[in-house]
Amino acid sequence: MTVLESSIPVSDALTPKREDRFSFGLWTVGWTGADPFGVATRPALDPVEAVDRLAELGAYGVTFHDDDLFAFGSSEAERRRAIDRLTSALDASGLVVPMVTTNLFTQPVFKDGGFTSNDRAVRRFALRKVLNNLDLAIDLDAQTFVLWGGREGSEYDSAKDVRAALERYREALDVLCQYAIDQGSSIRFAIEPKPNEPRGDILLPTVGHALAFIETLAHPERVGVNPETGHEQMSGLNFMHGIAQALDRGKLFHIDLNGQRGIKFDQDLVFGHGDLINAFSLVDLLEHGGPDSTPAYDGPRHFDYKPSRTEDFTGVWASAAANMRMYLLLRQRAAAFRADPAVQEAMAAARVAELRHPTLFDGETYTDLLADTSAYEDFDTGSYFGGNGCGFVALHQLAVEHLMGAR
Amino acid sequence: MTVLESSIPVSDALTPKREDRFSFGLWTVGWTGADPFGVATRPALDPVEAVDRLAELGAYGVTFHDDDLFAFGSSEAERRRAIDRLTSALDASGLVVPMVTTNLFTQPVFKDGGFTSNDRAVRRFALRKVLNNLDLAIDLDAQTFVLWGGREGSEYDSAKDVRAALERYREALDVLCQYAIDQGSSIRFAIEPKPNEPRGDILLPTVGHALAFIETLAHPERVGVNPETGHEQMSGLNFMHGIAQALDRGKLFHIDLNGQRGIKFDQDLVFGHGDLINAFSLVDLLEHGGPDSTPAYDGPRHFDYKPSRTEDFTGVWASAAANMRMYLLLRQRAAAFRADPAVQEAMAAARVAELRHPTLFDGETYTDLLADTSAYEDFDTGSYFGGNGCGFVALHQLAVEHLMGAR
Amino acid sequence: MTVLESSIPVSDALTPKREDRFSFGLWTVGWTGADPFGVATRPALDPVEAVDRLAELGAYGVTFHDDDLFAFGSSEAERRRAIDRLTSALDASGLVVPMVTTNLFTQPVFKDGGFTSNDRAVRRFALRKVLNNLDLAIDLDAQTFVLWGGREGSEYDSAKDVRAALERYREALDVLCQYAIDQGSSIRFAIEPKPNEPRGDILLPTVGHALAFIETLAHPERVGVNPETGHEQMSGLNFMHGIAQALDRGKLFHIDLNGQRGIKFDQDLVFGHGDLINAFSLVDLLEHGGPDSTPAYDGPRHFDYKPSRTEDFTGVWASAAANMRMYLLLRQRAAAFRADPAVQEAMAAARVAELRHPTLFDGETYTDLLADTSAYEDFDTGSYFGGNGCGFVALHQLAVEHLMGAR
Amino acid sequence: MTVLESSIPVSDALTPKREDRFSFGLWTVGWTGADPFGVATRPALDPVEAVDRLAELGAYGVTFHDDDLFAFGSSEAERRRAIDRLTSALDASGLVVPMVTTNLFTQPVFKDGGFTSNDRAVRRFALRKVLNNLDLAIDLDAQTFVLWGGREGSEYDSAKDVRAALERYREALDVLCQYAIDQGSSIRFAIEPKPNEPRGDILLPTVGHALAFIETLAHPERVGVNPETGHEQMSGLNFMHGIAQALDRGKLFHIDLNGQRGIKFDQDLVFGHGDLINAFSLVDLLEHGGPDSTPAYDGPRHFDYKPSRTEDFTGVWASAAANMRMYLLLRQRAAAFRADPAVQEAMAAARVAELRHPTLFDGETYTDLLADTSAYEDFDTGSYFGGNGCGFVALHQLAVEHLMGAR
Repeated sequence: MTVLESSIPVSDALTPKREDRFSFGLWTVGWTGADPFGVATRPALDPVEAVDRLAELGAYGVTFHDDDLFAFGSSEAERRRAIDRLTSALDASGLVVPMVTTNLFTQPVFKDGGFTSNDRAVRRFALRKVLNNLDLAIDLDAQTFVLWGGREGSEYDSAKDVRAALERYREALDVLCQYAIDQGSSIRFAIEPKPNEPRGDILLPTVGHALAFIETLAHPERVGVNPETGHEQMSGLNFMHGIAQALDRGKLFHIDLNGQRGIKFDQDLVFGHGDLINAFSLVDLLEHGGPDSTPAYDGPRHFDYKPSRTEDFTGVWASAAANMRMYLLLRQRAAAFRADPAVQEAMAAARVAELRHPTLFDGETYTDLLADTSAYEDFDTGSYFGGNGCGFVALHQLAVEHLMGAR
Repeated sequence: MTVLESSIPVSDALTPKREDRFSFGLWTVGWTGADPFGVATRPALDPVEAVDRLAELGAYGVTFHDDDLFAFGSSEAERRRAIDRLTSALDASGLVVPMVTTNLFTQPVFKDGGFTSNDRAVRRFALRKVLNNLDLAIDLDAQTFVLWGGREGSEYDSAKDVRAALERYREALDVLCQYAIDQGSSIRFAIEPKPNEPRGDILLPTVGHALAFIETLAHPERVGVNPETGHEQMSGLNFMHGIAQALDRGKLFHIDLNGQRGIKFDQDLVFGHGDLINAFSLVDLLEHGGPDSTPAYDGPRHFDYKPSRTEDFTGVWASAAANMRMYLLLRQRAAAFRADPAVQEAMAAARVAELRHPTLFDGETYTDLLADTSAYEDFDTGSYFGGNGCGFVALHQLAVEHLMGAR
Repeated sequence: MTVLESSIPVSDALTPKREDRFSFGLWTVGWTGADPFGVATRPALDPVEAVDRLAELGAYGVTFHDDDLFAFGSSEAERRRAIDRLTSALDASGLVVPMVTTNLFTQPVFKDGGFTSNDRAVRRFALRKVLNNLDLAIDLDAQTFVLWGGREGSEYDSAKDVRAALERYREALDVLCQYAIDQGSSIRFAIEPKPNEPRGDILLPTVGHALAFIETLAHPERVGVNPETGHEQMSGLNFMHGIAQALDRGKLFHIDLNGQRGIKFDQDLVFGHGDLINAFSLVDLLEHGGPDSTPAYDGPRHFDYKPSRTEDFTGVWASAAANMRMYLLLRQRAAAFRADPAVQEAMAAARVAELRHPTLFDGETYTDLLADTSAYEDFDTGSYFGGNGCGFVALHQLAVEHLMGAR
Repeated sequence: MTVLESSIPVSDALTPKREDRFSFGLWTVGWTGADPFGVATRPALDPVEAVDRLAELGAYGVTFHDDDLFAFGSSEAERRRAIDRLTSALDASGLVVPMVTTNLFTQPVFKDGGFTSNDRAVRRFALRKVLNNLDLAIDLDAQTFVLWGGREGSEYDSAKDVRAALERYREALDVLCQYAIDQGSSIRFAIEPKPNEPRGDILLPTVGHALAFIETLAHPERVGVNPETGHEQMSGLNFMHGIAQALDRGKLFHIDLNGQRGIKFDQDLVFGHGDLINAFSLVDLLEHGGPDSTPAYDGPRHFDYKPSRTEDFTGVWASAAANMRMYLLLRQRAAAFRADPAVQEAMAAARVAELRHPTLFDGETYTDLLADTSAYEDFDTGSYFGGNGCGFVALHQLAVEHLMGAR
């Protein structure tokens, strides 16, 4: 949010616009409500209707898994028909497809995973399925191809050779990258980590594990991450911290925003309906985490959530709108937080910006440091007992008050 | 465990020997029992006694933080005296110091961290403190220098610029590596991840995050990880999986074994007294995870645990012995598991080894795969419904029975 | 396990027998594998086949929800036919139905719960459905009617008046108890707690909450608990502790045994395939927790687990057998643990039995205690520093070694 | 907050006043910052200064453990002097002591607990210590005596006979209640549950377990609960739900407000600095959960938090003030939420109030219900598929917007 934006009427600042780059998966608003203990509570949603309604609400893009658009095992004609209906709807509404992903988890054939199934025939089938869908993604001009390996994992330690599984995962990624390169496509891949569910333990369980794995690939520059709020929080991790580490490495290729209330099953609530304070600091990072408080991320703000099973379609669309409204509200609050002189003073007291200064002085070597008695021999460590307070709580209280619109 | 070892008498197989490479931190048996809600229940333990007793019990090494050996702020003479007493005890007992680590967390000066404190003067002091201790580690011929950044983190999102913090962390590691290289030392660094406690969120919270961070360093080959059982399990992660990913990258430089009962405060129980099944699969991986079931790791088996606060020194030494006995018992069970023909049959049924075979055939390209109709067009995905069972539960039951000595 | 039993051959001690009282839900072996991210991997299982196979494997009973036996909305004729087929199978196999439960969670009508739905019409329907199924339970001579209120809860705090919900829950239980009493039936009710999933937060989330709620009922003597291993462990609680508190109150009416690997989604693994050490202490409590080490519980050992989605029917039956084998193995190990003189010595050192002695002496009043200077004024609290060790770790190590068959 | 209150100036509404009944433990602002990995960062705080400063900030009461006021093992004269200094300060400031508690956890003698130590002599000492402090509480006219049994628990299942421990716990409570009754005091006891830390598993781990235990006491009417935000959230439970169940039973005798960020060690953050949305619904319940939206609780709003270890005394007092400000802000937002016609409409759509209506009609029996075909035979369950949406997400969005001051 720029100064200019701040001066526009509030109501307008909270109206989703195309330039806000909000996108939704077809499987989100289209979720029928079947869960581990219940059958569907809503009928299937026509992708065309999803596109139309999301466009009306102010989104700029939709995303999908192959199986969201056409049933697993569709004939080429059925597949074509489904794609054509979608592209017509996109053309009519002006929506784009910034990201496509693939489904290697729903069908029985993938019960032990796709790229890392113990069964080689399944792995070969999985690779073919993804190559097919990658063609479609390239055709639709998607910038990102997301890979969520929800079935790549295990329940039983002895039944999965994890080192071998990582080799196979790498093999698959290397093939996909090479294929995309050979097609002359600029599409990039984004791995979406998750610690568990549906598998007892999933491979590449966190943003960190995925980032580390990427460095082992043949084409690391083609592959980044697609972190999801709830997935990191299912491990009790700070989502904003994970995003910051991904940004540190230039690997935040895409992001899945939603809500989660602590360490439990994957809730996929509306963004901000989980850990609200962390949602605030996340939006602050995305919007102001770059140099001179510029945005640190300019990709889609993608909502990967589920409209609660208690809702009918009225609730589905209300929940879709709520995601965007939460983002815009938080963006507004983060801008006001950054602009408040009291906050700037508290930040200075907490020495937040001092951390950007290297520990060594400009041109200083460790030899110089070793010779600097003020750094060690004469340094007054005692002054940190009962003094040199960090001022963190006062700063945080200001953040929460801005979040609450109380300043 | 080799065939030869299997044939030696059981009682002997369970007696710790120097070649088992068991090591302990001075701070483990020396923990006095002070916790967030209680004062010490045991007096301080003289490091010399710790060395003597651990040697008697069969350990081969001890490790320490600088502050374990001499009080923070010691004069050079006090420091020297403490080091000399230790080295004499080591000489007498035959124990070695395979690893040294540093304390950037106990003192008030480090209340906001060491390498990533917002306060630059603290960061400079921290670097000096670590360089000092690195000299000692090199002197003692330690192979590994561990860095646990327990205070590198935050409670309040706005109070810590995480991207800047990662830059400073990197700066510190780069200085340390360069220093070690310039000293002509072969010592390597190992980062020990932890998700939280004492900070609300700690930077580099898991093995994955640490591995990813290492790739961004100036000398990544000098830096690996020192994963701790309980630290990964505090995030609900599968410790064996994390170790496997570290091995995949050649980064398991050191390991901290202990026990943890789920997601809660850091318990530091005896190894195996937490998630016993995962401890079994971990030992199986360390001992049999290499090519042809050779050991995947040949470094120290280091116990980083705390003798429960309820115990007096009798209990301290009983608990130290219990760590080694648990490892040896699990090693014995893992060897029997690997040797059992019924297990080998169940593993074949579960296609565990098939995962080592690349998905593509030797020399096959993606073009070949795309042309292979048996892989996709003619592949019978339907046979995975109600058939093609993975046999994982039966295999796991065999593993548990071996763990229980029931086969 | 009695002395007599200990003397029988091991293989026989591990063969399930009717007197072991092992029972399974039809929904366990009959689970088709549909989960939040996948469709069924196995076809439906005919309840008659389930009965036959479980009988062969050594079970003594089966249990079911109404919807397991006949589809929701069945006509009376369909319902009758299904019941008749089941009772014929039971007669032929000798199996009994010790428990019946009801399904108020699968259908859309229950999307906001049954007894505590905000919608009064739904609550009335739910009560009718349960009364119907209670008739069937009484007909089948079940001793226990289990109520798992998986949909009784909320995702959003403002949307559920929890106090009102508890009143409605109570109203429903009071009606059911009165109905059973009026029918002259001795059937008892057992509430099955769970903290979350499928709802974000479920009412009566733990054994403790259910026990407390029971005391508020019109007929508390009719209502107890049916704790499930994994449900308590999903809150990070010690399952054995919860069972002990239920026993303290005489409320362990039924038990659901399974496996769970920490705080995450509900895994429903085979009993013992989760926290093995806690499974050992649980079996020890059930079998030896009564006076003079007699069994503390004599009801069914009911397995409420799911055969992993990766398995075909061979795996289904292997997993069913594994549950019983795990129980028998643990029972055997617990008996050996109790019989070991070294354990008895360690227990004495740890003063475990001393806790059974009241704190006040026989006939002592608080006035006497206040006058006893040895209790306070002259009591040497200093001896607990560096002394008076509890010996807990050594005892635990013995327990783990017995669990591992290492003694 | 009443209509009247709403009309007073905002700034005044956010200024703590005596009638707001805010209280703090001496151990909160007095915490020196020693944690499991660090020594104190602040000097001890004189209780007299604590009283003075808290009075200035607008608190109405202070609370304490015996050991907070005078060192463990103080002579009677030292004890008397400390008490006199406190009472003088209270008189001068106008502060009261609404609650007193006792410390059975810090000293080595309590390493295995107080009331439930395996060691009978320790249990006798503990009872004496508490009786002493109960005398003081009665003298000071405290209304509530809190018992937090942080060391009543175990790490090792075999080392603690949980059933015997519950008997001893009961014995202790029964003695204390009888003593208070015999003294003619109206003081009531409140059990403070916690799942773990410092013990691996603590007895009475949640509000539910404590409520259930209370029913087994000789004088249940004398004993209630003192739930703490973070303690329930350490088990992943919904704090507001637990409070609602305590209110349902008339057992909310006292409350400990603070902040916790998920399942991890006990953080004791400022109230509202953890799960902000749940803090909002909690305040809404406390202030509006009674009949006709009257307050459901009229006791002290007690903050049991720790000023972060990073802070000096400036930060200590800022954090103390932040607790009260957060409560007042949330109270203001909850009042506005209740008053908003759009909220009332959304609540009606979500049928929230309908849950207060009994499921059976006035005078209706189960026989009548069984005869009502509209309730079952003719009930249209199909209308809940794709219809009869609950409107929960829209209502929750309104709640979050009020929390954020966005309406």
